[in-house]
Amino acid sequence: MVRVPFVYQRTIRFQDTDAAGVVYFANGLSLCHEAYEASLEASGIPLNTFFGKSDLAFPIVHASIDFLRPLSCGDRVEIHLTPSQTSASQFEIAYCVYLAAALEKPVILATTRHVGIDAKARSRHNLPPFMVNWVAQWGTPGKIPG
Amino acid sequence: MVRVPFVYQRTIRFQDTDAAGVVYFANGLSLCHEAYEASLEASGIPLNTFFGKSDLAFPIVHASIDFLRPLSCGDRVEIHLTPSQTSASQFEIAYCVYLAAALEKPVILATTRHVGIDAKARSRHNLPPFMVNWVAQWGTPGKIPG
Amino acid sequence: MVRVPFVYQRTIRFQDTDAAGVVYFANGLSLCHEAYEASLEASGIPLNTFFGKSDLAFPIVHASIDFLRPLSCGDRVEIHLTPSQTSASQFEIAYCVYLAAALEKPVILATTRHVGIDAKARSRHNLPPFMVNWVAQWGTPGKIPG
Amino acid sequence: MVRVPFVYQRTIRFQDTDAAGVVYFANGLSLCHEAYEASLEASGIPLNTFFGKSDLAFPIVHASIDFLRPLSCGDRVEIHLTPSQTSASQFEIAYCVYLAAALEKPVILATTRHVGIDAKARSRHNLPPFMVNWVAQWGTPGKIPG
Repeated sequence: MVRVPFVYQRTIRFQDTDAAGVVYFANGLSLCHEAYEASLEASGIPLNTFFGKSDLAFPIVHASIDFLRPLSCGDRVEIHLTPSQTSASQFEIAYCVYLAAALEKPVILATTRHVGIDAKARSRHNLPPFMVNWVAQWGTPGKIPG
Repeated sequence: MVRVPFVYQRTIRFQDTDAAGVVYFANGLSLCHEAYEASLEASGIPLNTFFGKSDLAFPIVHASIDFLRPLSCGDRVEIHLTPSQTSASQFEIAYCVYLAAALEKPVILATTRHVGIDAKARSRHNLPPFMVNWVAQWGTPGKIPG
Repeated sequence: MVRVPFVYQRTIRFQDTDAAGVVYFANGLSLCHEAYEASLEASGIPLNTFFGKSDLAFPIVHASIDFLRPLSCGDRVEIHLTPSQTSASQFEIAYCVYLAAALEKPVILATTRHVGIDAKARSRHNLPPFMVNWVAQWGTPGKIPG
Repeated sequence: MVRVPFVYQRTIRFQDTDAAGVVYFANGLSLCHEAYEASLEASGIPLNTFFGKSDLAFPIVHASIDFLRPLSCGDRVEIHLTPSQTSASQFEIAYCVYLAAALEKPVILATTRHVGIDAKARSRHNLPPFMVNWVAQWGTPGKIPG
């Protein structure tokens, strides 16, 4: 079975850019987070409840980003997203951002690491079934721990 | 002839929200600007050149926004945009933002006023044909001056 | 008695700018909101509770902004803020943004209109004493209704 | 000789937060970039020219961030910044973000890696003397290559 990563399409907006004429570096991570949100929606997870109104939360504890070339206003990009569960309470997402017109070579590579917590107590909490299913739907099978 | 306004579809993202759980007020105007960019693209105007790399620029000299109800992460909105030329060197855009599921009543009303300038001299400049055409394509006919 | 408006000082940051090399228009309103936050702090109002964790909220229902000249990265600005109560449940704030090196002429003029609401019911609520006091501390006396 | 890192003070703003009630993760990197800008200013480097109007540019090619605890609106933070030159054309910056009221333990750790380029040709360019001096002024002596 071949798994296809989740793909999110987006046009770079004027607001994403800075006075150097290209995407402001931190906005590269925001682009990736949008793809994450779209993948949650695609799995039927309601975003309004998920972000800020739920007993469980999955805050980002680590993120990294590499820029292979700059992005400009109007550029059409595709973000390919692959989640993997890394412990009972933790998952990571790998993002490859491509120009839609040049899918052979990424322009941005990024990762985010998320920890499941009880939103009130802010203590660690195992990933609930809907998140395990979300990882299984879009993720790399071999990376899901037993 | 019935003119249809330009319509831009967008999902409210986590990044658009603030600690009150709804869209941060200034981001309401950014949503509208995205619709403006999309309408330029739809008229064949290349965004990368248009914003920051052209001899002519159309900076916003005035903007206003009214919030009729708040927007939350995951809300799907439609932004209806209507430009009108208000002088030889100036145009305005009216925006109505609707929840895609409730198109009878807007949730945001906004306007932006733009002035054509020579980007280097920063002196007023008449709207070039491609912008007059863009207004004609999406705008209210009665509002275009003779 | 001569009242001095609340003054907030800020340097324009790279993140505030866009590919046209100047402050992105919607960020002009964010600058003004920062001044509002600083004035609340200066009156002893704890921001963390005020924004999003309180029974009462004061969402913005209207905002407008005029740009008299553009702002660039590194520009030092002063934002002068004057609140006024416009009804039992409503207040407005007028903002003048100046270059710190040229205080005789504003570069941005803006306003925000806020409505007091019960945050859960989202119904109108009269301004509580601490907000009436905040208006009185920084506002124009003649504009405060009897 | 004991070197003191560059310290930048900042209050967390409503705009920095998201619907989870805390600082949006990508904005953590923007906070750090503000500290970088302030350190350039403190070394007499004019920001307006530096960002986007110069023959040389220093784009970020890599960034990473770790969140040790969340930040809320109104929190006062101190960002301690330490640059180091890592090759003839490259430098890195390490950032420690602290609550101003609890300086013994960071809340965010971050890094950015910058490459000197000819802004037009977008080819690598050695760091000019003013950037070597900036690293020397705020950096860790042992990390500056021979």
